Amino acid sequence: MIEITLPDGSIKEFDKGITPMDVAKTISEGLARNVISAKFNNTIVETTTPLSINGSLTLYTWKDKQGKTAFWHSTSHIVAQALEELYPGVKLTIGPAIDNGFYYDVDLPTGTISEKDFPKIEQKALEIARGKHDYKMRSVSKADALKFYKDQGNEYKVELIENLEDGSITFCDHDTFTDLCRGGHIPNTGIVKAIKILSVAGAYWRGDENKPQLTRVYGISFPKQKELKEYLELLEEAKKRDHRKLGKELELFTFSQKVGQGLPLWLPKGAALRERLENFLKKAQKKAGYEMVVTPHIGQKELYVTSGHYAKYGEDSFQPITTPKKDEEFLLKPMNCPHHCEIYNTKPYSYKELPKRFAEFGTVYRYEQSGELHGLTRVRGFTQDDAHIFCTPDQLDQEFKNVIDLSLYVLGSLGFDNFTAQVSVRDLDNPDKYIGSVENWEKAEQAIINAAKEKGLDYVIESGEAAFYGPKLDFMVKDALGRQWQLGTIQVDYNLPERFDLTYKGSDNEMHRPVMIHRAPFGSMERFIALLLEHTGGNFPLWLIPDQAIVLPVSEKHEKYAEKVLKSLENNEIRALIDNRNETVGKKIREAEMNKIPFMLVVGENDEIANTISVRRHGGEDLGAITIEQFNDLVTNEINSTLKSF
Amino acid sequence: MIEITLPDGSIKEFDKGITPMDVAKTISEGLARNVISAKFNNTIVETTTPLSINGSLTLYTWKDKQGKTAFWHSTSHIVAQALEELYPGVKLTIGPAIDNGFYYDVDLPTGTISEKDFPKIEQKALEIARGKHDYKMRSVSKADALKFYKDQGNEYKVELIENLEDGSITFCDHDTFTDLCRGGHIPNTGIVKAIKILSVAGAYWRGDENKPQLTRVYGISFPKQKELKEYLELLEEAKKRDHRKLGKELELFTFSQKVGQGLPLWLPKGAALRERLENFLKKAQKKAGYEMVVTPHIGQKELYVTSGHYAKYGEDSFQPITTPKKDEEFLLKPMNCPHHCEIYNTKPYSYKELPKRFAEFGTVYRYEQSGELHGLTRVRGFTQDDAHIFCTPDQLDQEFKNVIDLSLYVLGSLGFDNFTAQVSVRDLDNPDKYIGSVENWEKAEQAIINAAKEKGLDYVIESGEAAFYGPKLDFMVKDALGRQWQLGTIQVDYNLPERFDLTYKGSDNEMHRPVMIHRAPFGSMERFIALLLEHTGGNFPLWLIPDQAIVLPVSEKHEKYAEKVLKSLENNEIRALIDNRNETVGKKIREAEMNKIPFMLVVGENDEIANTISVRRHGGEDLGAITIEQFNDLVTNEINSTLKSF
Repeated sequence: MIEITLPDGSIKEFDKGITPMDVAKTISEGLARNVISAKFNNTIVETTTPLSINGSLTLYTWKDKQGKTAFWHSTSHIVAQALEELYPGVKLTIGPAIDNGFYYDVDLPTGTISEKDFPKIEQKALEIARGKHDYKMRSVSKADALKFYKDQGNEYKVELIENLEDGSITFCDHDTFTDLCRGGHIPNTGIVKAIKILSVAGAYWRGDENKPQLTRVYGISFPKQKELKEYLELLEEAKKRDHRKLGKELELFTFSQKVGQGLPLWLPKGAALRERLENFLKKAQKKAGYEMVVTPHIGQKELYVTSGHYAKYGEDSFQPITTPKKDEEFLLKPMNCPHHCEIYNTKPYSYKELPKRFAEFGTVYRYEQSGELHGLTRVRGFTQDDAHIFCTPDQLDQEFKNVIDLSLYVLGSLGFDNFTAQVSVRDLDNPDKYIGSVENWEKAEQAIINAAKEKGLDYVIESGEAAFYGPKLDFMVKDALGRQWQLGTIQVDYNLPERFDLTYKGSDNEMHRPVMIHRAPFGSMERFIALLLEHTGGNFPLWLIPDQAIVLPVSEKHEKYAEKVLKSLENNEIRALIDNRNETVGKKIREAEMNKIPFMLVVGENDEIANTISVRRHGGEDLGAITIEQFNDLVTNEINSTLKSF
Repeated sequence: MIEITLPDGSIKEFDKGITPMDVAKTISEGLARNVISAKFNNTIVETTTPLSINGSLTLYTWKDKQGKTAFWHSTSHIVAQALEELYPGVKLTIGPAIDNGFYYDVDLPTGTISEKDFPKIEQKALEIARGKHDYKMRSVSKADALKFYKDQGNEYKVELIENLEDGSITFCDHDTFTDLCRGGHIPNTGIVKAIKILSVAGAYWRGDENKPQLTRVYGISFPKQKELKEYLELLEEAKKRDHRKLGKELELFTFSQKVGQGLPLWLPKGAALRERLENFLKKAQKKAGYEMVVTPHIGQKELYVTSGHYAKYGEDSFQPITTPKKDEEFLLKPMNCPHHCEIYNTKPYSYKELPKRFAEFGTVYRYEQSGELHGLTRVRGFTQDDAHIFCTPDQLDQEFKNVIDLSLYVLGSLGFDNFTAQVSVRDLDNPDKYIGSVENWEKAEQAIINAAKEKGLDYVIESGEAAFYGPKLDFMVKDALGRQWQLGTIQVDYNLPERFDLTYKGSDNEMHRPVMIHRAPFGSMERFIALLLEHTGGNFPLWLIPDQAIVLPVSEKHEKYAEKVLKSLENNEIRALIDNRNETVGKKIREAEMNKIPFMLVVGENDEIANTISVRRHGGEDLGAITIEQFNDLVTNEINSTLKSF
């Protein structure tokens, strides 16, 4: 008999050799129908794996991230089989699940796969799926495994197997198909009801551009046809809202091949929007007792030796900057914290002077492979809305709550009301992994959990997810398309105060170490603006949007009046444009709609006589003819209703 | 007979062999008494050099920069003689004039020179000077010159001579002293009436730290004892106002050995002051039609190949940043213009859309030798208040005037009312040096001169001082100590539009090149703030100063009332502090004076009863007891009187 611990803490006894699926059945038939993957003692197993020792078991359904991973990985086997059948001689390499679906990298004997081939692949894969073939894992000796793929002439799998240890190698079979595989499948192919091939791309074997180029086939699958349909609609909408597309159309930012990939250039409208966002946060931060500082974008080697980053500065980074002076090296700063520690160290502090809160919109640089760059969300240079709080351990609790308040204010003012929090704490089984006293860790973890509770956050606690230097809380935000993004982080740090020898004099007249909190409510200005663009589809909150209104004279005759209206809007600090091209009002409205301008102010004969403007909202709502004063009130009220003061 | 052209354009005939001093005598005895140096055909000559060809002659007195240079260089010979007499065996190397005085680098046989030795050196040098010895130049063959210094065992002079061409070598004698020297002396030592040794420092032979270390003796001299006294008083005052000292005392900025020399860290009070300055300029720039942009602090090699900077990026610079990708190189940006050209190039323009004015507070990095770094005035990273105007050639005139208006507004608002302008134009004898058509150059130079005239600037035109890419205007500002600084520059550029292939469509429907103007009214935020600190001695204009007022309760009893006063000041957006330490009001006032706080608001029994504050200005003026409203008006009026809107 073995003892199985379930996630609710209950322990059940079973015969040795019981499978996760059997355990599911003892719980409920309904659960058993939905279980598609399992984790036993922190390792993903098949639902059919016999369990022979005591341990903890978690069962996963499609609703779980781990369930989706198993589902998509299993589908990649089906698609691989379809490719083998459709493209005889194709060589398979690897086929993992990814965030949204899966891919399989293959070496085609001849020809290419293009979009017109997708339906045929999908059809073949679905045919296979409908066969309800079980996924069956089996151990293979290294010699047999090598022989299997050498016979096929598949040098890729051979290379993979050569790097594996004999005794650890497994194959997975289903139908007539066999693949080298570590495991983690759903019970059978029949659960996959909808498969979509999304795209193909080139990919180098092992990501190395000196190695052969393969064809990467991207796909996704679902347990219901309806779910695929919804997903494709979402994709369509996401394409329309793609921040790269909108950023270009709205003239917010651009990239230049000469300046370099992943290095955004902010155009006037984007730079102004970004400044409004920064000023919004600055104002709240001032009230919250932060002080702004400014630090350089480089730092000497010694700084990063002290911080510990230098040792981790590998070959995949921007390389150090040397100078005419021997052994002098500077690094492009990858983070602002070491600089802020040096600012803290400019003078001695008493406990009465803490907390010190140093904030900076600090631009940092991190090298990313060009293939990983993506608009403003994955860049090589970005500006963090960074701050570091230096406080006594006793102040940590209150400071953490204050930071949560500020973060909630930021999210709320920008229309993100769907979010959760993730609290990352120690792995209690590995105490040696962490720096700082157990007492301080307990205090900090408790402070974070208390704060999350007290502020009414919807949070989960993830054991073992804390950094070695301290626990943290991350905000996970759902955007208008239901996609989840990690935004804003609050981290406790016991490491840097130690490394930079930060001190303060306590009430006991002894020197103590302050605790440090890293925090960034936006995360990065670039990523946040990208997200906000996709969340709002470019229809930014009124206080933030580049142009709040556009004046549209119905004919040349009313241009003078239109100019007068514009002047008067400017005096009221409303950001407005005028469109006095010789075009129809209809066309002007259509373009203003495309440019996401919230208010179109049409002015014609009647308006000029009555000294009014005819207001049309973005989207079509007609607000009728009102005076400029009334319009000004409308704008002010709308801004005040979204943008509360902190 | 030869023809001599004088600076006023007049041409006089003289016998061949006439000396500059003889020419001076023909003009006036007074002039001859004061002439101490001369330039003939663009070469500095002795006042005793016989002239044997036609040419242009300029005579210099102590009032001229060139006169001072000759005076100080000549003094370095006297001091060198003194050192030879006082330190037998001393080896002389080089002894040039510098901006304020001169130095001589010497290799001492034994021992050191310290401050206590200065009077003895000064005394000996003055003794020599009083001998009224003439400076006499003579030609020496290379062999004789080498023998002279080899006999002395002076390897430094030998090395210098080895690099000279035979036939071009001259010695200068006075009294018993001889030195290798190119010339440029005053008539005799007797003109030097006051000599001061200022300091000693270590200096490497030829500035190379692998070569022997020498002793650099700094000194200065004057034709009158009174002038030396005034200079020393000025030095004393400058020391008090040294921005490095004040910056530390007022907690504006700091440097960290770990972050790196020459890389300022802006502390909260300094960062806030800097932001006020930036906002002040932003506001004016917005009115003037500028648009802010934001660009990264690095750029790819290709960007600088295009701009032409890459070719000039030498070994004395921050070296390129390499990446994991072969042949990929980034440079830390030394200027913002290439980035702004790329922004211009994002879309096509019609002439109707010009001028475009892109502004950015852009932080740039330039490597300076550590010995050349100086507080905020010589740094390795600094923020330019940069902007680039792209306009049609026809718009240049108006744009230039607009930039002058903006520059004058900036200088005026910050209390600099003593300045001149320098207009740098082509060297008409070297037309090949310049890029761009002669027609455009003429237009641009005329535009600058017209603008300078029309705006009533006190300006000089310097021929041949223009950059190869265009003419420019620099503002030269005199600070409160009478020292001159170059501040703010306006440059026309025909080069980058060419290199970046910038275009616009003209009214003729053809594509044309825009003209570019580079301009920065502050120059750099770091240097400007340093200058402002020294100009004001830390007593910044009221609108800019970190803390505008401090509330000083006379005893603990009045703390509550003091807090109420503080709150009320904050509501009026007056930046105020409170000093409620248990100290005497006298002490609090003394410290507030040191901290340069403009208004001290003493509150005691009577104030609390009458609801007033007793206002004391920085410096001591007593403004009596007034209400907070009255004080608020006082502050507002004072700010409005210095800070006009643009």
